[in-house]
Amino acid sequence: MWGGRFAEGPSAIMREINASIPFDKALWRQDIAASKAHVAMLGAQNIVSADDAKTITDGLDAVAAEYERDGVPEDWDLEDIHMTTEGRLAELIGPVAGRLHTARSRNDQVATDFRLWVRETIDQTDAGLEALQRALVIQAGNHADSIMPGFTHLQTAQPVTLGHHLMAYYEMIRRDRSRLADARVRMNESPLGSAALAGTGFPIDRDATSAALGFDRPTANSLDAVSDRDFALDYLMAASQISLHLSRLAEEFIIWASQPFGFVRMADSLSTGSSIMPQKKNPDAAELVRGHAGRIIGACTSLMITMKGLPLAYSKDMQDDKPPVFEAASLLALSIAAMTGMVADSTFKTDRMRQAAELGYATATDLADWLVTEADIPFREAHHITGAAVKLAESKGVALDELSIEELQAIDSRVDKRVYSALSVEASVAARASYGGTAPDQVRSQVAQARAALDIEG
Amino acid sequence: MWGGRFAEGPSAIMREINASIPFDKALWRQDIAASKAHVAMLGAQNIVSADDAKTITDGLDAVAAEYERDGVPEDWDLEDIHMTTEGRLAELIGPVAGRLHTARSRNDQVATDFRLWVRETIDQTDAGLEALQRALVIQAGNHADSIMPGFTHLQTAQPVTLGHHLMAYYEMIRRDRSRLADARVRMNESPLGSAALAGTGFPIDRDATSAALGFDRPTANSLDAVSDRDFALDYLMAASQISLHLSRLAEEFIIWASQPFGFVRMADSLSTGSSIMPQKKNPDAAELVRGHAGRIIGACTSLMITMKGLPLAYSKDMQDDKPPVFEAASLLALSIAAMTGMVADSTFKTDRMRQAAELGYATATDLADWLVTEADIPFREAHHITGAAVKLAESKGVALDELSIEELQAIDSRVDKRVYSALSVEASVAARASYGGTAPDQVRSQVAQARAALDIEG
Amino acid sequence: MWGGRFAEGPSAIMREINASIPFDKALWRQDIAASKAHVAMLGAQNIVSADDAKTITDGLDAVAAEYERDGVPEDWDLEDIHMTTEGRLAELIGPVAGRLHTARSRNDQVATDFRLWVRETIDQTDAGLEALQRALVIQAGNHADSIMPGFTHLQTAQPVTLGHHLMAYYEMIRRDRSRLADARVRMNESPLGSAALAGTGFPIDRDATSAALGFDRPTANSLDAVSDRDFALDYLMAASQISLHLSRLAEEFIIWASQPFGFVRMADSLSTGSSIMPQKKNPDAAELVRGHAGRIIGACTSLMITMKGLPLAYSKDMQDDKPPVFEAASLLALSIAAMTGMVADSTFKTDRMRQAAELGYATATDLADWLVTEADIPFREAHHITGAAVKLAESKGVALDELSIEELQAIDSRVDKRVYSALSVEASVAARASYGGTAPDQVRSQVAQARAALDIEG
Amino acid sequence: MWGGRFAEGPSAIMREINASIPFDKALWRQDIAASKAHVAMLGAQNIVSADDAKTITDGLDAVAAEYERDGVPEDWDLEDIHMTTEGRLAELIGPVAGRLHTARSRNDQVATDFRLWVRETIDQTDAGLEALQRALVIQAGNHADSIMPGFTHLQTAQPVTLGHHLMAYYEMIRRDRSRLADARVRMNESPLGSAALAGTGFPIDRDATSAALGFDRPTANSLDAVSDRDFALDYLMAASQISLHLSRLAEEFIIWASQPFGFVRMADSLSTGSSIMPQKKNPDAAELVRGHAGRIIGACTSLMITMKGLPLAYSKDMQDDKPPVFEAASLLALSIAAMTGMVADSTFKTDRMRQAAELGYATATDLADWLVTEADIPFREAHHITGAAVKLAESKGVALDELSIEELQAIDSRVDKRVYSALSVEASVAARASYGGTAPDQVRSQVAQARAALDIEG
Repeated sequence: MWGGRFAEGPSAIMREINASIPFDKALWRQDIAASKAHVAMLGAQNIVSADDAKTITDGLDAVAAEYERDGVPEDWDLEDIHMTTEGRLAELIGPVAGRLHTARSRNDQVATDFRLWVRETIDQTDAGLEALQRALVIQAGNHADSIMPGFTHLQTAQPVTLGHHLMAYYEMIRRDRSRLADARVRMNESPLGSAALAGTGFPIDRDATSAALGFDRPTANSLDAVSDRDFALDYLMAASQISLHLSRLAEEFIIWASQPFGFVRMADSLSTGSSIMPQKKNPDAAELVRGHAGRIIGACTSLMITMKGLPLAYSKDMQDDKPPVFEAASLLALSIAAMTGMVADSTFKTDRMRQAAELGYATATDLADWLVTEADIPFREAHHITGAAVKLAESKGVALDELSIEELQAIDSRVDKRVYSALSVEASVAARASYGGTAPDQVRSQVAQARAALDIEG
Repeated sequence: MWGGRFAEGPSAIMREINASIPFDKALWRQDIAASKAHVAMLGAQNIVSADDAKTITDGLDAVAAEYERDGVPEDWDLEDIHMTTEGRLAELIGPVAGRLHTARSRNDQVATDFRLWVRETIDQTDAGLEALQRALVIQAGNHADSIMPGFTHLQTAQPVTLGHHLMAYYEMIRRDRSRLADARVRMNESPLGSAALAGTGFPIDRDATSAALGFDRPTANSLDAVSDRDFALDYLMAASQISLHLSRLAEEFIIWASQPFGFVRMADSLSTGSSIMPQKKNPDAAELVRGHAGRIIGACTSLMITMKGLPLAYSKDMQDDKPPVFEAASLLALSIAAMTGMVADSTFKTDRMRQAAELGYATATDLADWLVTEADIPFREAHHITGAAVKLAESKGVALDELSIEELQAIDSRVDKRVYSALSVEASVAARASYGGTAPDQVRSQVAQARAALDIEG
Repeated sequence: MWGGRFAEGPSAIMREINASIPFDKALWRQDIAASKAHVAMLGAQNIVSADDAKTITDGLDAVAAEYERDGVPEDWDLEDIHMTTEGRLAELIGPVAGRLHTARSRNDQVATDFRLWVRETIDQTDAGLEALQRALVIQAGNHADSIMPGFTHLQTAQPVTLGHHLMAYYEMIRRDRSRLADARVRMNESPLGSAALAGTGFPIDRDATSAALGFDRPTANSLDAVSDRDFALDYLMAASQISLHLSRLAEEFIIWASQPFGFVRMADSLSTGSSIMPQKKNPDAAELVRGHAGRIIGACTSLMITMKGLPLAYSKDMQDDKPPVFEAASLLALSIAAMTGMVADSTFKTDRMRQAAELGYATATDLADWLVTEADIPFREAHHITGAAVKLAESKGVALDELSIEELQAIDSRVDKRVYSALSVEASVAARASYGGTAPDQVRSQVAQARAALDIEG
Repeated sequence: MWGGRFAEGPSAIMREINASIPFDKALWRQDIAASKAHVAMLGAQNIVSADDAKTITDGLDAVAAEYERDGVPEDWDLEDIHMTTEGRLAELIGPVAGRLHTARSRNDQVATDFRLWVRETIDQTDAGLEALQRALVIQAGNHADSIMPGFTHLQTAQPVTLGHHLMAYYEMIRRDRSRLADARVRMNESPLGSAALAGTGFPIDRDATSAALGFDRPTANSLDAVSDRDFALDYLMAASQISLHLSRLAEEFIIWASQPFGFVRMADSLSTGSSIMPQKKNPDAAELVRGHAGRIIGACTSLMITMKGLPLAYSKDMQDDKPPVFEAASLLALSIAAMTGMVADSTFKTDRMRQAAELGYATATDLADWLVTEADIPFREAHHITGAAVKLAESKGVALDELSIEELQAIDSRVDKRVYSALSVEASVAARASYGGTAPDQVRSQVAQARAALDIEG
């Protein structure tokens, strides 16, 4: 009936479905740190003797050294990192190891370990995003004047500068970092001492363990503390938004790197070639970043579904909190690093961009604005005149500023020669000098502020 | 080929797929407010004359009054709330209406309107959650001493108090409110003046419109401002976490209301009966709250998928940002209100709860703790002794504290009569007085702090 | 405490959260049909008298006529379509209306109505997909010889024909239709007669009602029948896959319609223009189709989450089954129709496509294949030689077939003049005549088979 | 700037993000099989010589033997299983290895390998589900007469039999198996020979490779064949529905195993105990099955998001197709096996179930039905009378059939002594003998048919 890898029957199934050590061994540093904080507090409170506390602490250090050197052994019968460590500790120091578990439970222990892990991941993610912002700001500074077509609906709409475009992503990442910072503040409470679910009768000092582990305070309700995985969801939700932002830039790189666009040449290090078509550069890294958004959002969805409708307090379903977080964190770190490399090392073909910006009558809006401002023509009428001019230019196969003044005046007599100053792509971008607009001066100002915020030297 | 409702062919399809007025009419107040702020600024900056500004403002007030009185007309050919309003304005005040659209575009307009709507929804959601917290705190205060079984794996683990259990949800909602507050701060920047994507050449004052609409500052990058829907996702993610918390409490109510548990009698107003079984109370409201978590999380997933991989700046896909947000907001408001009613109006059957807590040897941990503390027996050995005592009690069909001292001493001679003080459920909960623990004094202290935070009078 | 629209308190909340009539009124035709089948069977089985059955049937016809004429009234106190209809029936025919509900329950009634609705939607979806296939096949036939660049990684890889590309979507839709057909077979069992959950003691004839409603057989287990929403998920999953296929074609249309590509001119009827830039055509319909994939997949996710972990039999959570299905069905019908219009009415700019295919050295693989086949050079070496030729051509800025025979022989002496026959894009596509390949003859053969399958006249 | 594990810079990032060998090595058997089929065909078609074909085949067998013995080496520089195998082949047999890749590409190769893997997983999943059905049918047969409360809204509604309840899951699994069967038929087409995207000019025989690999036919369009991942989604969608069904049964086991219900004693092998509370049995396996639904549905969502909006043909995003499928398949196999063990080895406490069924006035519907049938009282009035009887019984604290005939007649004089035959739970379940109903005879009939379908001996 059982066959295959479960030939042994239900006990083999149970051993496999129940074991979390294959993935929760990633928590070993956090588990050791939390145990050391706990036993130090037990000693200080005279719940265990000073000698026992010392023995246990030294033993934990010894176990940590073994893990560091040899890796964490993966024995399914020991189920998880907590029992693996406690088991090894007992082998090293004998029965006194059993005193470590006084006044705690696996429920508050895993909640503590996992929070520490997520907190560290948030810090690493933030550092990765800062590096990406630096790459964006530096390229934006280089390209404050580089003109490209600004798209809506992927149709050429108005000329913008590449620096302005890149700084849009700087803003997205700024919000992403604030999301991580908020999540960090919210999660930075220590569950340790909540025990199985109800707290404990031992005279523990939760402030002490909280402080020792860098938390801001202990959690206020023990039932909540062992049932709560909000912090993991906060991280996954921030990760999902980051991955969405990265997917948008990845999509742009992929489109820009296509032959018809030709706006960018991807770095050799982050694309693959073809032995047969040496000129071809597949934007693999960009595609993988875009694809990873699916898996990161999938991880977030996964944990939301798992948590839905769980009664208090701890349920074993919650063991499925870690794989999605670990997977998302690994994919996200790679995605951020790859995108940073792409931004830093891609070559933007500014000539192709400028050329594309000049096609498509991208300065039609500027003509209309000129008519409103200089000839005091109402908006809707100005639009109508502009439409006629574009139609004429299109039928002649020329750009707007290649129409003669006679041709323009034939459409509307109020046009005069000053109009040509509005019709070049340079004039167009320079004009859009409203706060946050695409004018090179605006971009330089945004870049300067960003450099200051990131402590980048002039 | 087309048949059915598209018999007219592609133009009928386009009219229907393109029209957002069936749902975005919900933005009419925000659209009027943003237009009034915009035209006031245009007037102040002399971009339109003071007279024109006054005419337009009065016209907008007139349109608003019509909407308030008659509802927003739904004409698919006018596509959206912006064109519907501008069209009606033109009918009322003539061609000067066309000056309103100077120096803005539908892209920054919809971004502004929708932010204003989401900001208001965040405020309403927060108010709803505060009411739910009040209901929780009041019931928790009433039940600081009411003993119930504390579950892990839905198995009786240790006795807890009902007040403690309810305060766990107070904590979850506290985090939810902080998430909303963070989202509000992050989103509170004004996109108005970003125009189509590149900013504008008109001498606008974005600080003025930002301040007039209650924003903290204008957005820093116009491309980002019209492409960004982070604020909608921030709301949907917060809503998803709220719905998960509510789903957990709903699940508990449903289980507690079952005949075998019998822990709670749902309020008549929030359950349905049966003409044939008058004693039956279906917890419909709780089930709908639990079910709504699916749709709210589905709405969040939906918008994430829609935003994935969109190139800058505005793409029409983004029109699908509003239905998920509107739906989630409506379901969430109902869910919060229903849950508030359930918490406030349910009758907890404390006798059944207490009785259940006394079954299942829920004080076994207390016996083990007593052995460690009072008899200085190592943890693991104390567990072994306790297991033997529970087994004996189970075989005799009695509670732990119904075993005689002789029976206990036969298991381990170090037990003495003081142990009985640890074996009642009252003693058990009273003992767990660590910070955040289930002891009635701890619960009262948590409740007192929460009452202060919520300004509930003593 | 309650404020706003719930000022009345919990009863107002309950009325709103509990009412499904705002959406389930869409089931009125199915509800009437199922009731008529039920009462006919009750009469035939002598469970109600022939006279009563006649009175009830006539009454149902009268209610249906009212709904047809005036719409379904939406009274929240009547909760749902079933009670709305039964209530109106009682007004029309008096107490005998109460006999209609003999031997059935709302649980089997709603399961029956909703199945009938989904079954009809499957049939309509299939008809829409067939129309899309026709449009694809006709365009593919027109473009069996039209050469375009075939992309991998959105990089030009090898020349293909547009007909071949369009027929790839024909295949996807073919699978989609088989998925709908499978779902239809699986769901086509009648739940009617399962009553509340346990079946009934009345001597009903489930085969009769099943046949009358076009089902293949009655369901085999009454508990399952009222708890099951697989049929709704089967539909949503098929809809999700359809929407993914449409999103891919939409993405291609959007990219192809961009100025740098210029492969397609979207139909006027399915794009929006700009008064100011008459040459601009925003591919709105394509973007909305792409965006709708998010909401359709979100609907599928939503129902999966709602159904997770529900104990048998009926739970009120399941009332949330209908809004996601209704929304997905509406968005999908629009998406399919819009895509059919885009395929049928777009103008493919075959000159731009061909021109793009000739850039990018898309026939490099053909050169390598020629070296293997004609000069018996091992594959890897052939790739090396080809790479050298492409590099030379690139450095000279010419196409592969513009290199002289001397230049080619300088790279490898085994090349001879016959090679030129392999280097044109026409030769390249003609050569790929393996089954399913891009050769025009292959495409014509695929098209012919598809025309036969769709009964399109020659 | 790069720090950590990417200190080496972009090339280290690329190596890690690009490498699929850590997961796609799971495809090694399929990769070898497909290569052997391919080279046999190349030999038969004289595209490679018979000698070369033999050398390559033997070499592939040698590589397979190494993998079987030592595992697949994981060298990130070789990227994937295809290059790992080809590289090792070249080491073993020299340059002739290069001929294996004639007329194919990694694009059709991976599509073929992955289909073969999914097809085998479908077969294994089906076998697992059949074992689960057997366990359900056997227990259902044992409990065709065991009475338990039937719930709606988790409220006692009517008595049902445990056998009937278990057979509801038999039906769900029957649909799941039909879904797998449908997916298998739909996916069983061979992509091999589609080459990179456009087919090939070599005179290959796709029918031959298709037949050799057990496919029904070759795919009809090469662009579709390398771009399609429907088969993976079909599997993930079927897996999601299976996991939803399992989550429902898991939820029931968890609730039934709680002390207040006490309907089931979980098998020791599939639950965990407590050293301190020996009577406690945590239903860990059931909770993990319920939790895994989140990850399996998350995997499905993940791949849907990744595939959204991808242009043809192959994009590197599609490399993210395998991890979700592998993870879901592993979790699902465990979940099915664990659930089979739970069904087979749990002890149902039929006395507790029967006792619960007798509480809650579960036969009230039977009283009403008796009034309709035997006393010809209209339905609504019968409900009213029944409500009065239940109210009286509740006030006296007795069961319905403990009311005296005088008490019943005081409520309505038309009641007579025959009514008692309808009021026992046995009478109630026996009466519901409509097709698919809960009557023991109906259940035995369902079980008999299921045993026949599963070839279980009498």
